[in-house]
Amino acid sequence: MENGQAAFRDALIAAGLLIPTGVDGLYGRSGVFEDVVERFNDLITTWGGGDGADVMRFPPGVARHQFEQSGYLKSFPHLAGTVHAFKGDERAHQSLLRRLEEGEEWTDAQLATNVVLTPAACYPVYPTIAERGPLPADGALVDVYSYCFRHEPSLDPARMQLFRMREYVCVGTPEQVMEFRQSWVERGRALMESLALPVAVDLANDPFFGRAGRMLAASQRDQGLKFELLIPIASAEQPTACLSFNYHQDHFGLLWDLRTPDGAVAHTACVGFGMERVALALFRHHGFDVKAWPAAVRAVLWG
Amino acid sequence: MENGQAAFRDALIAAGLLIPTGVDGLYGRSGVFEDVVERFNDLITTWGGGDGADVMRFPPGVARHQFEQSGYLKSFPHLAGTVHAFKGDERAHQSLLRRLEEGEEWTDAQLATNVVLTPAACYPVYPTIAERGPLPADGALVDVYSYCFRHEPSLDPARMQLFRMREYVCVGTPEQVMEFRQSWVERGRALMESLALPVAVDLANDPFFGRAGRMLAASQRDQGLKFELLIPIASAEQPTACLSFNYHQDHFGLLWDLRTPDGAVAHTACVGFGMERVALALFRHHGFDVKAWPAAVRAVLWG
Repeated sequence: MENGQAAFRDALIAAGLLIPTGVDGLYGRSGVFEDVVERFNDLITTWGGGDGADVMRFPPGVARHQFEQSGYLKSFPHLAGTVHAFKGDERAHQSLLRRLEEGEEWTDAQLATNVVLTPAACYPVYPTIAERGPLPADGALVDVYSYCFRHEPSLDPARMQLFRMREYVCVGTPEQVMEFRQSWVERGRALMESLALPVAVDLANDPFFGRAGRMLAASQRDQGLKFELLIPIASAEQPTACLSFNYHQDHFGLLWDLRTPDGAVAHTACVGFGMERVALALFRHHGFDVKAWPAAVRAVLWG
Repeated sequence: MENGQAAFRDALIAAGLLIPTGVDGLYGRSGVFEDVVERFNDLITTWGGGDGADVMRFPPGVARHQFEQSGYLKSFPHLAGTVHAFKGDERAHQSLLRRLEEGEEWTDAQLATNVVLTPAACYPVYPTIAERGPLPADGALVDVYSYCFRHEPSLDPARMQLFRMREYVCVGTPEQVMEFRQSWVERGRALMESLALPVAVDLANDPFFGRAGRMLAASQRDQGLKFELLIPIASAEQPTACLSFNYHQDHFGLLWDLRTPDGAVAHTACVGFGMERVALALFRHHGFDVKAWPAAVRAVLWG
């Protein structure tokens, strides 16, 4: 499996679609790769833009105090990236440079800033909605898109450390958010089938940390809280999750005190699109030359 | 001055153009704000796309080994952001959660990853060009665009910690890169004047660290290596650099062993566009309602 991943990555690099940096999971993208991502992003808007979502665009970092409150460290401590900076004087600077020069570890003198890398595009949405007071009767619908970070260096080009996620997020009553999620399971499948990709939708779980995490994962599956749309990319046996459909129940509602107009704790759900993964799926199944892609697929993306 | 900055920031937040996070310099953007950034980005392509630049798009992080080699820590240690992660076991995780719960510092147990936040969009370009071997006779021209991080929390909305920079980068003979820079000083001014913004181009210097840094800054000015296009945003007296035109001489050529076809060390130059700053300048001078902007400006951006 790992061989297939490395071979696919090397082929993408040889074709100039990805630019290596010497760090697994950290790549530049060519203009062609980016064009595919942008066209796919527009396609999502074509399918979802009619719902009147509130468009928010956050940078790739979130506020540390919001991140700490989010509970992410309970479930996924191994994936988070905190941003640290030098806060010393000139003498400390000389010491830093000396250690760097001599090949010693210099990063242990870096101190945490108030910024943490965005772990999923929707994380800054919940405190933002909470700030705005009680929800409207028909709930809140938000459209977000950002670079996200997960510390999981991998040979698999579909498992990058820095990647983009587009999401629609729904906050409201259990009925509202379940209907939102169900509609996106159907739309997501139809959207991806319009790109002539082989898709399967399956029950899934998040990569919770540790032993307690295994129980959380099992419980998440038992309750049918997470579905993924899978496409074979680097491996036929282990297809890659390209879209995910998540029902958080009252998890974020309780954390951020999100309330429906009648005072009940709000429920939330989101649909997430892994932008690089979808681009890679298209390159895998239709070839590296976008001009040679099936005419129907080109028509969907480039109109 | 600071009052003017905070007042402008608060007005942008009240208008919904920026979304506060509780951290100075870290904001979400509304759909309207993003649309202005995207239209301005397209306008840059209109002015620069005909030069045949190689389009590269890097994520908001660079490889640590490339960052260490880049010399950034010599000049700007105070601005860099290193990415750190939890690498412990379940016992360490329990300890992390306990410290978090009790309001203690937990981030000092985070260890550096191989990712550093991108300090300027062009930083990953030089090692990428170096990898490709000797330059072509007419040099190399690259188009990059990414989120960048600088650790400088500020009340000034034009001084964000996470912001976007579009750049064209030229690598070649001193004559080639000087001609590139001169053409962009002229194009940049004309481009910005087409948006009916009050601009001035002036000599500038980078914010080098410490006492030695003051000498570097003076030397940079004496040699005329850096020019900025300035527009009043939060303050009329201290206008904000929205574009910069930089001649690095052989700094990056020596660092990365970039060579012209005759074996000489290559020189480099870049033009950088501060995307959020330009958007803020437009909101400052034409108002918060984009529909009420001058027809000529709307025509340039929305066609």
